[in-house]
Amino acid sequence: MTLMYDQLLNIIQDADRISRNETILEQHSKGMTYHTPQVPELVVYPKSKEEASQILTYANEREIPVTPFGVGSSLEGHIIPALGGITVNLSLMNKVLEIRPEDFLVKVQPGVTRSQLNKELKKYGLFFPVDPGADATIGGMVSTNASGTNSVKYGTMKDQVLGLEAVLADGRVVRTGGMAVKSSAGYNLTSLFVGSEGTLGIFTEITLRLQGIPEVTLAGRALFSSIDETGSAAAAMLKSGLDLGKIELVDQATIQAVNAYKNTDYQEVPTLFIEISGSEHTVKKDMELAQEIAIEEGCQLFEFESDSLARAKLWEARHHVAFAIQAANPGKGLLSTDVCVPISELPNAIKETRKLIELHGVKAAIFGHVGDGNYHAVLSIDAENPEHVKKIEEINQQIVAYALEKGGTCTGEHGIGKGKKQFLRLEHGGTVDLMKEIKMTLDPKGILNPGKIF
Amino acid sequence: MTLMYDQLLNIIQDADRISRNETILEQHSKGMTYHTPQVPELVVYPKSKEEASQILTYANEREIPVTPFGVGSSLEGHIIPALGGITVNLSLMNKVLEIRPEDFLVKVQPGVTRSQLNKELKKYGLFFPVDPGADATIGGMVSTNASGTNSVKYGTMKDQVLGLEAVLADGRVVRTGGMAVKSSAGYNLTSLFVGSEGTLGIFTEITLRLQGIPEVTLAGRALFSSIDETGSAAAAMLKSGLDLGKIELVDQATIQAVNAYKNTDYQEVPTLFIEISGSEHTVKKDMELAQEIAIEEGCQLFEFESDSLARAKLWEARHHVAFAIQAANPGKGLLSTDVCVPISELPNAIKETRKLIELHGVKAAIFGHVGDGNYHAVLSIDAENPEHVKKIEEINQQIVAYALEKGGTCTGEHGIGKGKKQFLRLEHGGTVDLMKEIKMTLDPKGILNPGKIF
Repeated sequence: MTLMYDQLLNIIQDADRISRNETILEQHSKGMTYHTPQVPELVVYPKSKEEASQILTYANEREIPVTPFGVGSSLEGHIIPALGGITVNLSLMNKVLEIRPEDFLVKVQPGVTRSQLNKELKKYGLFFPVDPGADATIGGMVSTNASGTNSVKYGTMKDQVLGLEAVLADGRVVRTGGMAVKSSAGYNLTSLFVGSEGTLGIFTEITLRLQGIPEVTLAGRALFSSIDETGSAAAAMLKSGLDLGKIELVDQATIQAVNAYKNTDYQEVPTLFIEISGSEHTVKKDMELAQEIAIEEGCQLFEFESDSLARAKLWEARHHVAFAIQAANPGKGLLSTDVCVPISELPNAIKETRKLIELHGVKAAIFGHVGDGNYHAVLSIDAENPEHVKKIEEINQQIVAYALEKGGTCTGEHGIGKGKKQFLRLEHGGTVDLMKEIKMTLDPKGILNPGKIF
Repeated sequence: MTLMYDQLLNIIQDADRISRNETILEQHSKGMTYHTPQVPELVVYPKSKEEASQILTYANEREIPVTPFGVGSSLEGHIIPALGGITVNLSLMNKVLEIRPEDFLVKVQPGVTRSQLNKELKKYGLFFPVDPGADATIGGMVSTNASGTNSVKYGTMKDQVLGLEAVLADGRVVRTGGMAVKSSAGYNLTSLFVGSEGTLGIFTEITLRLQGIPEVTLAGRALFSSIDETGSAAAAMLKSGLDLGKIELVDQATIQAVNAYKNTDYQEVPTLFIEISGSEHTVKKDMELAQEIAIEEGCQLFEFESDSLARAKLWEARHHVAFAIQAANPGKGLLSTDVCVPISELPNAIKETRKLIELHGVKAAIFGHVGDGNYHAVLSIDAENPEHVKKIEEINQQIVAYALEKGGTCTGEHGIGKGKKQFLRLEHGGTVDLMKEIKMTLDPKGILNPGKIF
């Protein structure tokens, strides 16, 4: 280990950028959920692709595991160094390299965070639309093919990434894609890297598509007396062809947890949060149409708001969900399910999930990106109590089994990581062998983020 | 060869579905462009994935080349069996397997054509948006990551394909993706197969996203006095955030060729064709905004039309471009360039292309999907005259070199095939080796569509 430290120091030439300090190691031992922490042997902070390449060349020669790290907001243990080794923290590679407003694109280093990027883009009237909630790094978001509330309108990370520069396990630097919005030149390696969870390479540069900030944005909140009505209203809005910016469902238990956490008095009923954005002459009419549909489906109260502060307040309950669940269960871990089903299956899937949770007598909040068919059940988990862990994992398994039976996926946006490995083969069968063959081709010694996905 | 015939007959058990008839072989020897034809040894027409799997297992054991074939509308020689062997014609696998209108998705066999699919979808108020011009098969469109006039609004094939069933070189059947609109479960093999030009597997089932037929569609035609103004107007419309359905540029030479071919009298000036679709209250206002922008940029005449027949007439000149060029040069072949550049580079790229063509004293039509930065120069080519071929290929090389210098791609939608192999390494450098490694992993004997891409 001293040898490894010295050799990496020889590459980095900067003792401030290699650490084996216990607090630092501990910070790199876990994500945001219940998975058992594991410390790396040391953490290194490269500043360039050259350094990243040298680190990987070194690690590959010696078969030392390497785990990439952004800000640690992973929900499936992606950044836990399962076999120890080196954690490569990319937070110092945080430059916005080039903004091309006329081309609606930007080149960034992987450690740039979502909010940092949007701050820099604002003066050009542009923004980057993918918003997974956490202020994740762009590199991390590419790694899990993140999405979030805006995806119903703008798509997921795979729809935004035009090109990548990545360092492969053996230290080779490859560039994929380019600056054209479309291409048919050879295999689409960009999309192969998006969602590869740090197991195929470490990103050192990312080219992203951007969007113009819409002229007008309106937010709405529709209250219902049952989760059935809420789901049906969402389905009806999607079917109507409305150009929805966001459409989020939050169940009664979730609003209760938020009220307890924030000392607020939101009406404790299933709620649909909607956002519509675009040009002046379309947005208001579209929101009225959304309201009409909601009322037809049994909506009791529909509020809307154009002022950005008031809009933020309208969304507050939705944004505090995870904190509220955590606060309601001090000292406990969290498990978030992440299934995504075909749109028409969503209302029933949510109902079944609620039934299952009640059957097991546990507490959970259910909310989700209903425009994509993606929803989360967030369950408090007592990681110290093996029986409780087993019970919660069984609920998770049943939620996934239901989604797969309906043609859905075990993970819409969080990735497989450590937590969903058992589900990958249930979902993709023998195709997992093909994924493994590709992994073996790109990383024959298996040094990149071992213990994840497979 | 008799042995191969007998052995394949033993698999297919139907003499009507194996052919070594000369006319049939000849039909499978070429696409729509100037590439030297080459006949296969025989053509086989599977009806199921089981048959496709048995054919590939047989071919792989004996290292016999296999070339997949849809309707033969390829522009880069993809379906020319460069090393002979077996052509697998997928036209009998042409069933629409399942339409799920509530989920906005459909499952089809690869031999379904675009127009066949849209005919079946119409009664559900749905359509499949990718329109490459030719009535290609869905399998062929997946193979080249096709796009076309609608892509500025709806994206390319890679944005539509949710899942695939494919037979690999060794006969293994794999399924990728699923029916959820997004997933982060393992590597995105779907996107790896999209655009792989028949070199990684033969598709046997494709799951596609669908769109609702818009309430209202308006078409517009804007006439300009220079190609500069036309390009600037297109750029200004894109920048304005208008939700454009189509935006196509056609140059003066192209309109001249169309007039000569169709005996029409369209004003022979650079023209922008626009289509905007959506709900009643947005479309008309958006088209007025498009008109305002066009006039600001120097537009002399702006016509628009909502009636579908009149709209078709307005688009007629654009749709007949390829035929017009062919008719103006009887007995000659065609070469179509297909570069795609960052949006801001488009007006200059088109100007440079026009200059280059005039410098070489050849005739060419320039038109393209300016919303994507993708445009085509269609050049008549005398395939019998090596010097002429050389000259045209040099022009092509220079157009590609210019696009690559500006961060663009050598092919926006046609693919590499035989015709652009020389450009792949210019564009992607050492990353091509990584593509080859993946090819070797999936098809170690190199039986699938040899001589294409690499």
